[in-house]
Amino acid sequence: MSKPSLASGTRDFGPEIMAKRNYIIEIIKRNFALYGFQPLETPAMENLTTLMGKYGEEGDKLLFKIINSGDYLSKVSDEVYTSRDAKKLLTKISEKGLRYDLTVPFARYVAMNHSNLPIPFKRYQIQPVWRADRPQKGRYREFYQCDADVIGSEGMLNEVELLQIIDDVFSMLKMKVVILVNNRKILDAIAAAMNATPMFAEVVTALDKIDKIGWEKVAEEIEQKGVENEGIKILENIVKFQGSNSEKIALLKTQITGSSIGVKAIEEIEELFAYLQSLTFANELKFDLSLARGLSYYTGTILEVRAVDVQMGSITGGGRYDNLTGVFGLNGMSGVGFSFGLDRIYDVMEELNLFPMRILASTRVLFINFDYESQQYACGYVQELRKAGIAAEIFPDMAKLKKQMQYANDKNIPYVVMIGEEERKENYLSVKNMITGEQEKKSFEGLKEMLGAF
Amino acid sequence: MSKPSLASGTRDFGPEIMAKRNYIIEIIKRNFALYGFQPLETPAMENLTTLMGKYGEEGDKLLFKIINSGDYLSKVSDEVYTSRDAKKLLTKISEKGLRYDLTVPFARYVAMNHSNLPIPFKRYQIQPVWRADRPQKGRYREFYQCDADVIGSEGMLNEVELLQIIDDVFSMLKMKVVILVNNRKILDAIAAAMNATPMFAEVVTALDKIDKIGWEKVAEEIEQKGVENEGIKILENIVKFQGSNSEKIALLKTQITGSSIGVKAIEEIEELFAYLQSLTFANELKFDLSLARGLSYYTGTILEVRAVDVQMGSITGGGRYDNLTGVFGLNGMSGVGFSFGLDRIYDVMEELNLFPMRILASTRVLFINFDYESQQYACGYVQELRKAGIAAEIFPDMAKLKKQMQYANDKNIPYVVMIGEEERKENYLSVKNMITGEQEKKSFEGLKEMLGAF
Repeated sequence: MSKPSLASGTRDFGPEIMAKRNYIIEIIKRNFALYGFQPLETPAMENLTTLMGKYGEEGDKLLFKIINSGDYLSKVSDEVYTSRDAKKLLTKISEKGLRYDLTVPFARYVAMNHSNLPIPFKRYQIQPVWRADRPQKGRYREFYQCDADVIGSEGMLNEVELLQIIDDVFSMLKMKVVILVNNRKILDAIAAAMNATPMFAEVVTALDKIDKIGWEKVAEEIEQKGVENEGIKILENIVKFQGSNSEKIALLKTQITGSSIGVKAIEEIEELFAYLQSLTFANELKFDLSLARGLSYYTGTILEVRAVDVQMGSITGGGRYDNLTGVFGLNGMSGVGFSFGLDRIYDVMEELNLFPMRILASTRVLFINFDYESQQYACGYVQELRKAGIAAEIFPDMAKLKKQMQYANDKNIPYVVMIGEEERKENYLSVKNMITGEQEKKSFEGLKEMLGAF
Repeated sequence: MSKPSLASGTRDFGPEIMAKRNYIIEIIKRNFALYGFQPLETPAMENLTTLMGKYGEEGDKLLFKIINSGDYLSKVSDEVYTSRDAKKLLTKISEKGLRYDLTVPFARYVAMNHSNLPIPFKRYQIQPVWRADRPQKGRYREFYQCDADVIGSEGMLNEVELLQIIDDVFSMLKMKVVILVNNRKILDAIAAAMNATPMFAEVVTALDKIDKIGWEKVAEEIEQKGVENEGIKILENIVKFQGSNSEKIALLKTQITGSSIGVKAIEEIEELFAYLQSLTFANELKFDLSLARGLSYYTGTILEVRAVDVQMGSITGGGRYDNLTGVFGLNGMSGVGFSFGLDRIYDVMEELNLFPMRILASTRVLFINFDYESQQYACGYVQELRKAGIAAEIFPDMAKLKKQMQYANDKNIPYVVMIGEEERKENYLSVKNMITGEQEKKSFEGLKEMLGAF
């Protein structure tokens, strides 16, 4: 008999947490569907040949690897075994791993199935991913990602619709956010104007930290990488500039049109804002010249969402990429996509108390099980309520009243019905409101009407 | 550049398959909720101490094991390493595995959380499980299970409600099934009457195959195990008996009341059928005296569902167990549960053509993107439709009409809207029905009404 525990860095989602998670996920799914995105699910296990080399050296280490089934040592040569080289041995005893994100499996799926897919292919995918990170507060080894991508289309309308989905989802969740937008080509062009193109990666890496470390530290870091003072001054002017979205575009026109990438960058950002101006957004859309989105595969528009009333970092992010499926042999598929940060959105919702109470009351009414007669009566009523789409329960044992009431409380059931001898004789139900404690006599039809309107 | 492939025994679920799977799952979930079951999710990875020894020796072998992260050889002593003993080495390089079913993680969850759970605890769980089986037609290494259990209650009402859920779900799926019911105590009592109690496991194992191999072979197998002819005759009389459910109970009363377990068995089956008689079922409920449900942990009522119009074996099964959580140190929690066989239900639905066509049309209307003007018009309409809860798309590129029509066809979109110069001038929409090919002029309000009623 072992005392059980969870594997480190993993979580159970009990009923209350599930109700809250499902509340968020259902709103996201509904919006994905309204915009024409279709669901996809890929397997948890992928061949290591599919996963390795896609996330950098650090990523390869963070992949959970699965030991080959059967006699897993049989493919290991004596030479490899006696070398006791963990890395070499690994390639012989493990061929599969758990997916690290949803992007690479999506690219694999598109590469394998593109001739049978509608193009553009608009898919969403909500599944767990696994990373062998050191577990710590807010960082788990198993967590859900929630991605939507359009692949095979270059039109800026796609970016516009992704921004609309984001705006719609957070509006429905009643969470105030600011949506930050930038374009990787602008960063490219800025680097060119800074005379720092060879140090582009370092500039982006430094800039990515501006929220945490501030401009002075960013400048220091860039200087150490060998960017000249003049170049740093150009970046500072751009990053520190305060103004409206169109004033920012005007500024860029004076700074980065020296390169062809700069011209293209301005064309793209102007096209995007032209669309956005003709639409109504509930949340603020901000052109953020310091938004970098790390060293990812993005090549065009990039976006990120922050909650307004809580400090939580990025809660959603994404962008356009030129060649996601190229690594699997399928070129020329430009795409754009983003990912809702489910865990962080959950945490913000919790902190701001944005989950509606009603989602916790999955069962609307409990019928008390006094004795065989009351049970017989209750069974019929419960069945009728269920047929009307109202979740109802009868306590399955003839237990003490206190235990049954406790059950209703534990499950947040708002109403409890008692049917004793008098109720049966006079043909009514005693209905107790578990929140106010009030008790009243009701006909079954009256009960049904009240519960239906809840 | 590697040519990508799926890991052996795993599947992608593309949009059409997802639509069909979700159709089944949503109906199941809705019914679980109506009966007061709440969702639970447990992590894919569990400690091997939780999983090992729960599924027999064969099961231990079929667990997918995960290599410890970091330097996984560091915990291996020279002695173990040089022995090259795969089994011993495994315990040093792997501490986690993928869940093999949903039952053991559920038992672990209850054992860890029972003091904070409503009792009885009614949970459902729909998640994938993994088994290192040899892949073959219809057998996968990753597949979904779909379980519901009530734990901490002994009342027969629980069994009744599980049978009602099954009946409701298959009715909603429009699939005709027969629900087989038996009780493990009856099998116990029959074995006692056969004077074969020590061979109980062997009798059950043989009986479990009666559908496939027939009575003669079952009898042979039992005889070889050492059951005497007189005993076999008793079993034959019971198994071959044709009659109504109540005639079967009457027969049992003459055969198995010699043991106290027999008396209890008849009491339980009579109580169950007393409940069932007062309820209406859409599908046949059959007391099947040969139903055995293998060597599982069941101790009371057992149940199994078969499709009527297709040969597919068991598509749903379950039963009552006395001590699921005992292995994790929590005793006295009787429970009853069952599992929908999602893959097999899917296959039956497919074979009988039971999926409604409408579920494949996720997007209801596509607006053609001719040029900038038509696009501007369309964007506004599309947004209005979405706000009304109607899934609508505009093609994101100004591509050739043929390509856009192809897209509508590929996605089973039933209506396509064209807005040319004339449409804009005369203020109407040209709406093409993609199924009939007919085209008509409609106002936007007319279109919205038609789509809303679709």
